[in-house]
Amino acid sequence: MGHGSGRAAHLRHDRRLSAAGSPGDIIIDGGNTNWKTALQDAADVKAAGMHYLDAGTSGGIWGLDNGYSLMVGGEPDIFQHCRPLFEALAPEDGGLVHTGPEGSGHFVKMVHNGVEYGLMQAYAEGFEVMQRSALFPGMDLHAIAEAWRSGSVVRSWLLDLIADGLHSDPQLARIKGFVEDTGEGRWTVEAAIEEAVPTPVIAASLFARFRSREEDTFADKMLAMMRNEFGGHAVVAENPQP
Amino acid sequence: MGHGSGRAAHLRHDRRLSAAGSPGDIIIDGGNTNWKTALQDAADVKAAGMHYLDAGTSGGIWGLDNGYSLMVGGEPDIFQHCRPLFEALAPEDGGLVHTGPEGSGHFVKMVHNGVEYGLMQAYAEGFEVMQRSALFPGMDLHAIAEAWRSGSVVRSWLLDLIADGLHSDPQLARIKGFVEDTGEGRWTVEAAIEEAVPTPVIAASLFARFRSREEDTFADKMLAMMRNEFGGHAVVAENPQP
Amino acid sequence: MGHGSGRAAHLRHDRRLSAAGSPGDIIIDGGNTNWKTALQDAADVKAAGMHYLDAGTSGGIWGLDNGYSLMVGGEPDIFQHCRPLFEALAPEDGGLVHTGPEGSGHFVKMVHNGVEYGLMQAYAEGFEVMQRSALFPGMDLHAIAEAWRSGSVVRSWLLDLIADGLHSDPQLARIKGFVEDTGEGRWTVEAAIEEAVPTPVIAASLFARFRSREEDTFADKMLAMMRNEFGGHAVVAENPQP
Amino acid sequence: MGHGSGRAAHLRHDRRLSAAGSPGDIIIDGGNTNWKTALQDAADVKAAGMHYLDAGTSGGIWGLDNGYSLMVGGEPDIFQHCRPLFEALAPEDGGLVHTGPEGSGHFVKMVHNGVEYGLMQAYAEGFEVMQRSALFPGMDLHAIAEAWRSGSVVRSWLLDLIADGLHSDPQLARIKGFVEDTGEGRWTVEAAIEEAVPTPVIAASLFARFRSREEDTFADKMLAMMRNEFGGHAVVAENPQP
Repeated sequence: MGHGSGRAAHLRHDRRLSAAGSPGDIIIDGGNTNWKTALQDAADVKAAGMHYLDAGTSGGIWGLDNGYSLMVGGEPDIFQHCRPLFEALAPEDGGLVHTGPEGSGHFVKMVHNGVEYGLMQAYAEGFEVMQRSALFPGMDLHAIAEAWRSGSVVRSWLLDLIADGLHSDPQLARIKGFVEDTGEGRWTVEAAIEEAVPTPVIAASLFARFRSREEDTFADKMLAMMRNEFGGHAVVAENPQP
Repeated sequence: MGHGSGRAAHLRHDRRLSAAGSPGDIIIDGGNTNWKTALQDAADVKAAGMHYLDAGTSGGIWGLDNGYSLMVGGEPDIFQHCRPLFEALAPEDGGLVHTGPEGSGHFVKMVHNGVEYGLMQAYAEGFEVMQRSALFPGMDLHAIAEAWRSGSVVRSWLLDLIADGLHSDPQLARIKGFVEDTGEGRWTVEAAIEEAVPTPVIAASLFARFRSREEDTFADKMLAMMRNEFGGHAVVAENPQP
Repeated sequence: MGHGSGRAAHLRHDRRLSAAGSPGDIIIDGGNTNWKTALQDAADVKAAGMHYLDAGTSGGIWGLDNGYSLMVGGEPDIFQHCRPLFEALAPEDGGLVHTGPEGSGHFVKMVHNGVEYGLMQAYAEGFEVMQRSALFPGMDLHAIAEAWRSGSVVRSWLLDLIADGLHSDPQLARIKGFVEDTGEGRWTVEAAIEEAVPTPVIAASLFARFRSREEDTFADKMLAMMRNEFGGHAVVAENPQP
Repeated sequence: MGHGSGRAAHLRHDRRLSAAGSPGDIIIDGGNTNWKTALQDAADVKAAGMHYLDAGTSGGIWGLDNGYSLMVGGEPDIFQHCRPLFEALAPEDGGLVHTGPEGSGHFVKMVHNGVEYGLMQAYAEGFEVMQRSALFPGMDLHAIAEAWRSGSVVRSWLLDLIADGLHSDPQLARIKGFVEDTGEGRWTVEAAIEEAVPTPVIAASLFARFRSREEDTFADKMLAMMRNEFGGHAVVAENPQP
């Protein structure tokens, strides 16, 4: 579920995963849970005599065929106990890591998604620069994406998807540029702020998504108003009447 | 004139200011000329036995009453010769500086405008954060701007204008968030890139203006397409048909 | 106190302001308290039969002479009751605003500081572009700041301070570029993320401060490593031995 | 060669590729040439009765084994004539695209590199967030990179290199965070500015590289000075004497 409404990602902890099991059980959270929630869940579950693993899961709808990349936090012996389960879900050639104690699995998955936001935005900006070129109009973006898939420094699974998407709809004429976010990008920036780590690219990627869901922002109105105030620059009227 | 059309700021030098005068004349360029053009103009004018001053001018439409801040490049004795002229235009308490050789006046004025973009965007973002607050809806932004004008760290002439603009139209309901740029912000980022100076705030301010003039960007379409490709996330259809 | 250590701004609420008074008392928090903490403080204080006002205060060490800009949240009649107190602290010509219910005073002050970060960074970037100019070396930055103070669009109280600082130390040779942050910039970005408001300038300003306190970041090491891996680009060795 | 010195990327056109051949020859520029230079080269070469192809080339030092991704601009029949040559250099499964007229090959390669900057910075930020985590210290970043290589959304060739680099030096203790740039990132931002396309991620990636090569920036000194001026915040002295 997205946050298009601007609703904050509430981290209040009112759930009791412990109610779902009995002492000795192992509860695995494989969703996109905030890592702070995972810490609380783990405390709750362990206080009830159970065990907790947080399994960050990546791969999207393709994981069913390709296997999922799994980042798992929790007690080492509990992780080892469940390893066959994870190995059955992961790709044959790897994709499974024990990241550390409870919470670290969701923390690493959160960062994974923050990185993903940045990668996606980097491609998106580059393709817009090509699409908007005045000197080289009408470049075949699908053919360029295909060429980049082989041998280039920017080849990636996301680029494979881009090539596929541009094959189906070369000008993306059927898609509106309205981009949801599901929380992990926000949490990555918040974690970076807690650690005092600069993350300009991940933050810019997040803001680009916010911006994609706004029309006629108040900030832009402020700018237009200021320009009018100091320079007498004409403003574009809202809802001009005939 | 703005660059809403995406037209590049062409710096080709096909004008001959020297044609406008005779040997011994002093030509003063008081516009928002690119400083590289000013260097070329100065060479042209001086080769014809004339003198050249580039007078960056700030103050907007208010300068007529308040006086203009003037940043002047050129030969020291030519500047001194024209000083009475500049002093007549500048505010009584200052506002005039000889910045160095030809071109430096427009260079400093360019940076002035780059800074201006950043200041404007900082206020704009802050006011949107207040305007969009879910917990404190309907804050009186005009009253806040007025209070900030006295004693606060963020008091400024731009804030005076903001207070004035919010007084006239508290929700900016009559203004569309479409923001032109007139070149100096672009040139500042280009100069920063030439010097390898990081200018994240000035660049972000420039990009916010570009973004304000786009609807449904190709970059955002790319993001929505990628999300659909890897996650099966629904896209919002462009021009949905009934 | 700064966050140079990377320590997160903890918002756990373990204080009881109510212990400081008796029913009917009014407790005024005039510090840089997080607005979420203010909400909790207000609930605590009001449950004990007292009243709470949060008075965001701006003006720095100059407030003693100039008066403080005050942004006050709380019950209207309690605000009115205390108004003479605030008016005694505020500048004679204004600077006082009732922002809304409890918490809103610190919220508005937080945004004020977020804006302040952006304003400061905008000036800082512009002055570095001038200071680093290869074509116009040695520009008199103090004289330029002074000229901008009169009549220009970027005139402000911060610019007054800049002129003062550059007067004392024109090349800032005695100051290290190590910049603390005190929490409000972080909170502004966090609030913006909760509201899904893009704040690229405020975030970039915050990240610039984080970056100023790091040497040889892990992110930059990663970049140098990648360049070496794909391009064979030489890396600069850490702690090179003779 | 990098631009660590802050030297601008000069685009003056004083070379004559036409001097290297005779009428009817085909000149192929396979370097990282600016696309505007390519336009001038093409005009020069074609005026001399020769043909010109600009072949943007990606793949780094690995191209010798893997093949190169090639983005070629120029006349269609000249491209077809040389196709066997390019196919011999490209990977067997693709990697070759005719991008359009002269100049477009270098334009597309420039954008490729701009995207590359963004991808690299996204990974770099994510790994620093993990490396700096206070709650999960000492995470095995190499193991995480390996796990992400299989099945995750962020898998890519750059991630393969990251895993390789972290295998050799898990804490990157032998590498200094000093990051060169070779021009294409700058040109991408300049092209974006000409087109009025917002590229916040590519610009932020470029600025991060600039910043990695500075110590104690003038912008940061300005910030510290301002904080001292308005708040009396202590500054860290430059070169403190005992």
